[in-house]
Amino acid sequence: MYLHGRNVLKELLGLRNSNIKVKRVLFTDQKNVDSQLEHLIKETRDKGLRVEILSPEKLTNLSREKKHQGVVIELKEFPYTDADAFLNDSSPSKKSTLVLLDQVQDPHNLGAIIRTSVAAGVDAIAITTSNSAEITPAVVKVSAGLVFKIPVIPVGNLARFQEKLKGNGYWIYATDMSGVAYYEVEYNDKVAMIFGNEGKGVRRLVKERSDLLVSIPMEKTVDSLNVAASAAILLFDRRRRIIIGERSQLSTTPG
Amino acid sequence: MYLHGRNVLKELLGLRNSNIKVKRVLFTDQKNVDSQLEHLIKETRDKGLRVEILSPEKLTNLSREKKHQGVVIELKEFPYTDADAFLNDSSPSKKSTLVLLDQVQDPHNLGAIIRTSVAAGVDAIAITTSNSAEITPAVVKVSAGLVFKIPVIPVGNLARFQEKLKGNGYWIYATDMSGVAYYEVEYNDKVAMIFGNEGKGVRRLVKERSDLLVSIPMEKTVDSLNVAASAAILLFDRRRRIIIGERSQLSTTPG
Repeated sequence: MYLHGRNVLKELLGLRNSNIKVKRVLFTDQKNVDSQLEHLIKETRDKGLRVEILSPEKLTNLSREKKHQGVVIELKEFPYTDADAFLNDSSPSKKSTLVLLDQVQDPHNLGAIIRTSVAAGVDAIAITTSNSAEITPAVVKVSAGLVFKIPVIPVGNLARFQEKLKGNGYWIYATDMSGVAYYEVEYNDKVAMIFGNEGKGVRRLVKERSDLLVSIPMEKTVDSLNVAASAAILLFDRRRRIIIGERSQLSTTPG
Repeated sequence: MYLHGRNVLKELLGLRNSNIKVKRVLFTDQKNVDSQLEHLIKETRDKGLRVEILSPEKLTNLSREKKHQGVVIELKEFPYTDADAFLNDSSPSKKSTLVLLDQVQDPHNLGAIIRTSVAAGVDAIAITTSNSAEITPAVVKVSAGLVFKIPVIPVGNLARFQEKLKGNGYWIYATDMSGVAYYEVEYNDKVAMIFGNEGKGVRRLVKERSDLLVSIPMEKTVDSLNVAASAAILLFDRRRRIIIGERSQLSTTPG
């Protein structure tokens, strides 16, 4: 997979103990490159990564993108996370939020939800494998490179995954127009929030296997929100409550 | 301006007392069109609009989009709203929320913010005219046709517009990482919320002319949220508070 752009490279260079395997980093051979690019070349070399210098046209050919900013990164396959590995690793007591995407198909939405999820402190993103967007260079770009900072779990059998989540103490909340208004929901400590396909929403059987349906009340003249907007609203509302809850607990603790 | 798609046509047909001027609606001449399209053709004729039947290829040429779904709409220029007309029309006492975009440049972000704003009950969207995305067919599409349901105010002189807002009782809140956490802000009844450019944020002078800077606290490892995600979070938090506030007022009213 070929990625491009300076911010993506910066994110990759900043990762610690990562399972991301960079094959090589390709830089432009243009004369008089700016100091930021020179700095990035040095930093990439210092990390022990393979550096190659190519013409801007070759970078465009490899990345299929003209706006590569003089930087193209070749990656081995995207390192997805195994569901069992994630669930076995996670602490059984701690507050946790997991995002589950049921056949979200637009790469722009997937990238946007990943960026928002990392910013909101979500612990992992699970994505169905059939009829769903997967992690592509376009998704990496829309996520602003943040996809490398969160486990992405591919889910083949969603029914079995939902059972596993329940077995690990997660409560499953599926978004649906008929659900309880989100600001009236009292969330469990462990939350798996399901967002559905752009046209059809969360599938019926997936909803039936969830613990609660949650809605975002909106103007009557509007049919639906974009799924990335819904995710931003619900995930940051959950974050707000965790912060406020932790603060009020702190303030009632005797000094 | 050529628009396309069945949902956009449905939104246009559903508008009342609109200042949107449809020149003509073009449908595909394919045999065996589905019943939804037949229904749309009839409905368009019933509204007294000019209907033309063309080949799918001609529809693609006009709309520059293959996925036109057999429907292309020719519109006269987009009907922007004048700032003074909007401010003179709006009630001086009522709660109001206005969105102001300071040089937002990505059409996808503009369309997404419009869709979210209409769903959240925002009263108008003001957009700067220089270095900014304007209403194009791409924006209409991303807005899911909702751009026709909200006044869009072009703003040439932002300093003067900010003064006008203040003169009309609006408090101006500009989004900025250094601001007060949004959940600690006590909003005025009349709120103008400013969101900034994708790379640079709200410009310094625009912030200096605002009443308060507002931030969305997020994970330290993340630089920023996408502007459309920020808008979704802040506008629906404001909506939530208005709904909850109105309900608690109702519940304390003697029966």
